[in-house]
Amino acid sequence: MKTAETIEDVRASVAEAKASGKSVGFVPTLGGLHGGHFSLIDAARQVCDYIVVSIFLNPTQFAPGEDLDRYPRNTEGDLAACSDRGVDLVFIPSVETMYVDGALTEVTVKYLSDALCGRSRPGHFPGVCTVVAKLFNIVTPDKAFFGDKDYQQAVVVKRMAADLNFPVEIVTCPIIREDDGLAMSTRNRYLCQDHRRQAAALHGALELAGEMIRRSHPPAAEVIEAVRRRLADAAPDGKIDYVQVVDTQSLRDVEGTSGPVLVALAVAFAGARLIDNTVVDSATG
Amino acid sequence: MKTAETIEDVRASVAEAKASGKSVGFVPTLGGLHGGHFSLIDAARQVCDYIVVSIFLNPTQFAPGEDLDRYPRNTEGDLAACSDRGVDLVFIPSVETMYVDGALTEVTVKYLSDALCGRSRPGHFPGVCTVVAKLFNIVTPDKAFFGDKDYQQAVVVKRMAADLNFPVEIVTCPIIREDDGLAMSTRNRYLCQDHRRQAAALHGALELAGEMIRRSHPPAAEVIEAVRRRLADAAPDGKIDYVQVVDTQSLRDVEGTSGPVLVALAVAFAGARLIDNTVVDSATG
Repeated sequence: MKTAETIEDVRASVAEAKASGKSVGFVPTLGGLHGGHFSLIDAARQVCDYIVVSIFLNPTQFAPGEDLDRYPRNTEGDLAACSDRGVDLVFIPSVETMYVDGALTEVTVKYLSDALCGRSRPGHFPGVCTVVAKLFNIVTPDKAFFGDKDYQQAVVVKRMAADLNFPVEIVTCPIIREDDGLAMSTRNRYLCQDHRRQAAALHGALELAGEMIRRSHPPAAEVIEAVRRRLADAAPDGKIDYVQVVDTQSLRDVEGTSGPVLVALAVAFAGARLIDNTVVDSATG
Repeated sequence: MKTAETIEDVRASVAEAKASGKSVGFVPTLGGLHGGHFSLIDAARQVCDYIVVSIFLNPTQFAPGEDLDRYPRNTEGDLAACSDRGVDLVFIPSVETMYVDGALTEVTVKYLSDALCGRSRPGHFPGVCTVVAKLFNIVTPDKAFFGDKDYQQAVVVKRMAADLNFPVEIVTCPIIREDDGLAMSTRNRYLCQDHRRQAAALHGALELAGEMIRRSHPPAAEVIEAVRRRLADAAPDGKIDYVQVVDTQSLRDVEGTSGPVLVALAVAFAGARLIDNTVVDSATG
């Protein structure tokens, strides 16, 4: 496995791989790799010949006061895990490599970026879109892999890639969960033991929502109310940022739940803001 | 010469050219080709093996009430001229090909887009940046060619390409002028005979500015005043949008003229809004 810290090194390695006819799969990450990331790498390995992982804790997708400064870093462990998983190239640039002095360009996706997490994190998705556009231009992958845990991110990035005609296929992969249902996340490492136990309720509440919708597709408001009650009971220390039932494409709130809907939530335990979601289609079960 | 109306056709032709080791030069245009465009094609031909011209009257860079509906189109003549000049591929997409339903993504370059023409055309440069990003991803050129007549556009596109790490070199080419000094522009075709005569004063006023700056590098305000007086005298029907003396990189107003400066102006004759500029460096003459 190679590691590259400069854009030139990435381009040279990828060009070499492409010249030998290899297809390039790309998994962009913030580091702090876990089972969710590993599933993306495995998925990439299944369908691509040359696998690139980026480890870049992108500051522009964090607002002042968010957890950029304490975000868990584990570069040595991340590199070892990538090597074990058959990654060919890890791109691990500095902030200065990614953002030259005087950079002024921003890529934004209207509406989709303002929904759900965008309400409490207004600069987040512009930061994500801009860095993903940069990484696509640096890595020039054939396919890029994103996890469904960050469902809104996947929707936004798909829209961005299509709208700007990036010659990159966006592949999304299922949420990977701990044994008790908690969606894997780098931020789970922030949780104290008690909060870690309560955090399993996020998935439990989403399962409850799925059951309700599949059983009788009630109004979204009823589903939201039930999810909030379950969270209040089972995760009393969790501060709910949002619980929403939205269209799976537009991410706009829906009133009914008879079509396919996304039930999404964000809950903060002390400084650990966790998100989770489920897509429920009452028609297909 | 090939023509392509679909993105797939462009990609196939460019891939074939690249596979045979050819470098790709790209000249994006709105159509209505003139000597300025031809100079860009010639410049591309000098340094690239495979030349792609796009002809796309991009609606998103025009505001409501601007001249999108009457912008001179001459597709047959444009194609003949491209063929004569040795262009390999003309990409001539429909609006529907370039903008799918539900597109939501915008590429913006802060500050630089708000200066000069951006003040009276606030959506213009976001429209330009977004379509250029799209075209770069469709054509994947090695080099792209832009004219100095649209100096601000070149600065903005260079910033965008660098910030987003597009693997494209932006090449700028000198302004091409008519015999009386008027900068070549598709919009010159709007001018009646009398206004066409007056319009030569734009270049005359910029030459005056250049002489003043080279002679004694006076305060920018004096240069602007002299340019405005000259325009009032020699182009009395021209409505001045702006006359500015700005930094050549930041495009911010300067007070002194001892460094290299850009003198830029926009003047409208009836419905014909014309722009012109000159870079003056009093140090080097």
